[in-house]
Amino acid sequence: MSERKPPATAGEVRQAARTGAWTEQTSGLVPGFAQANLVILPQEFAADFLLFCQRNPKPCPLLDVTAAGDPTPRRAAPTADLRTDLPKYRVWQEGRLVDEPTDIRQLWRDDFVSFIIGCSFTFEAALLRAGVPVRHIELGRNVPMFQTNIPCAPAGIFHGPLVVSMRPLKPADAIRAVQITSRYPAVHGAPVHLGFPEQLGIADLSRPDFGDPVPVRPDELPVFWACGVTPQAAVMAARPPLVITHSPGCMFVTDLRDEELAVG
Amino acid sequence: MSERKPPATAGEVRQAARTGAWTEQTSGLVPGFAQANLVILPQEFAADFLLFCQRNPKPCPLLDVTAAGDPTPRRAAPTADLRTDLPKYRVWQEGRLVDEPTDIRQLWRDDFVSFIIGCSFTFEAALLRAGVPVRHIELGRNVPMFQTNIPCAPAGIFHGPLVVSMRPLKPADAIRAVQITSRYPAVHGAPVHLGFPEQLGIADLSRPDFGDPVPVRPDELPVFWACGVTPQAAVMAARPPLVITHSPGCMFVTDLRDEELAVG
Repeated sequence: MSERKPPATAGEVRQAARTGAWTEQTSGLVPGFAQANLVILPQEFAADFLLFCQRNPKPCPLLDVTAAGDPTPRRAAPTADLRTDLPKYRVWQEGRLVDEPTDIRQLWRDDFVSFIIGCSFTFEAALLRAGVPVRHIELGRNVPMFQTNIPCAPAGIFHGPLVVSMRPLKPADAIRAVQITSRYPAVHGAPVHLGFPEQLGIADLSRPDFGDPVPVRPDELPVFWACGVTPQAAVMAARPPLVITHSPGCMFVTDLRDEELAVG
Repeated sequence: MSERKPPATAGEVRQAARTGAWTEQTSGLVPGFAQANLVILPQEFAADFLLFCQRNPKPCPLLDVTAAGDPTPRRAAPTADLRTDLPKYRVWQEGRLVDEPTDIRQLWRDDFVSFIIGCSFTFEAALLRAGVPVRHIELGRNVPMFQTNIPCAPAGIFHGPLVVSMRPLKPADAIRAVQITSRYPAVHGAPVHLGFPEQLGIADLSRPDFGDPVPVRPDELPVFWACGVTPQAAVMAARPPLVITHSPGCMFVTDLRDEELAVG
């Protein structure tokens, strides 16, 4: 697989995933196109989850929601098939991971509703374009993520704490990062906090709850953004009979351009 | 004076200053209209000072510059007369304060160039409208200001350190304050720093170089903005034979609306 030429367009990534030619992570593929988290739920839980996202827009920025049974997100990628177009999926039964297939055609149901949720890849690309360094990318690691003591607004069966990602930045870069990420409300937007991890209930920055640790230097502020792991954690905690998500790092590559998601 | 009804429009403030009916501070008068710093220099120094402002736009945001000898800032207030329309002036000879008159008609010269420089009153009003508390206003004090170890870009005879104002804010308010003040590049714009005063060469936040101290609570970050005292300090340090400025707090009230100065 790794000898193949990487796909050059969003459609090519999806096509390569569809044929099984690409089953790897999507990070760094087709820069400029927004990648997204995927959550697929039976319709009976969809209204609650939609409400959860509406009430918690910073961690759960919805780019698209399909009609029940429709495998195509008409706004985010009108030619896509969500049953085949991600490199890898995870299947969860009552909160337990039971399978990690490369397509979900056999599992598809007419009552499935798919939620396409913005991902920080979009604003990280914007930070890098502006010369703001992103530590975990420099180190080739996953971003460190932390559960906070801030509860999300609950909705039906869905509830849980806000999960945040952390990027250490020098003060002037932190100010620039607030400006830049404010332009992207559809992908978590501005930070939710900077400076005092203990105010979020985070005891030790070197021990993230998800992802990898990165060093915070003495002249840097830890800057925290709402994270797309929040809705995933809320779904897992609710233990619905069946949920399908993307596999970590194997995102849904949309036809939406990063700059299409920018305001101003 | 204090028994009089305060002026209701920018023009009324200027008219009241012109007739001698208002000789007090302008803080809080006619909300919504931008107030400004005034620096008047003989033409022989004007080109250097203009270049100094161009090279240091964050501390020296120019709202208007007059033609030599013209007492009217055509953009900022086309009916104003800068010789009479401020409540109080300061006259400096070779860097020394020699007089504090309420008009400067007797001193006016055909070679005077007037610089109208944006002032943080505009963004403070925007912060308050957004519910971001401004400590020194709550305490009825002047904002604390500090010389930094950051040199301005010099121009001709003008040089000196960046002077910053400091407002303590809780982290979420600091993030909001970056967003809000970024909309006002014409009045210092986004902060230049937050979090580490020692990185700016500031040893003790309780001992400002100008203005009044305000407490910084343990759950707050000190947030620093470029300050209009920077160009004034650079002018004083250059000790030109004659300079006229506004008297502290007795600003020039322009016809520019705060929101006219906002981007986005």
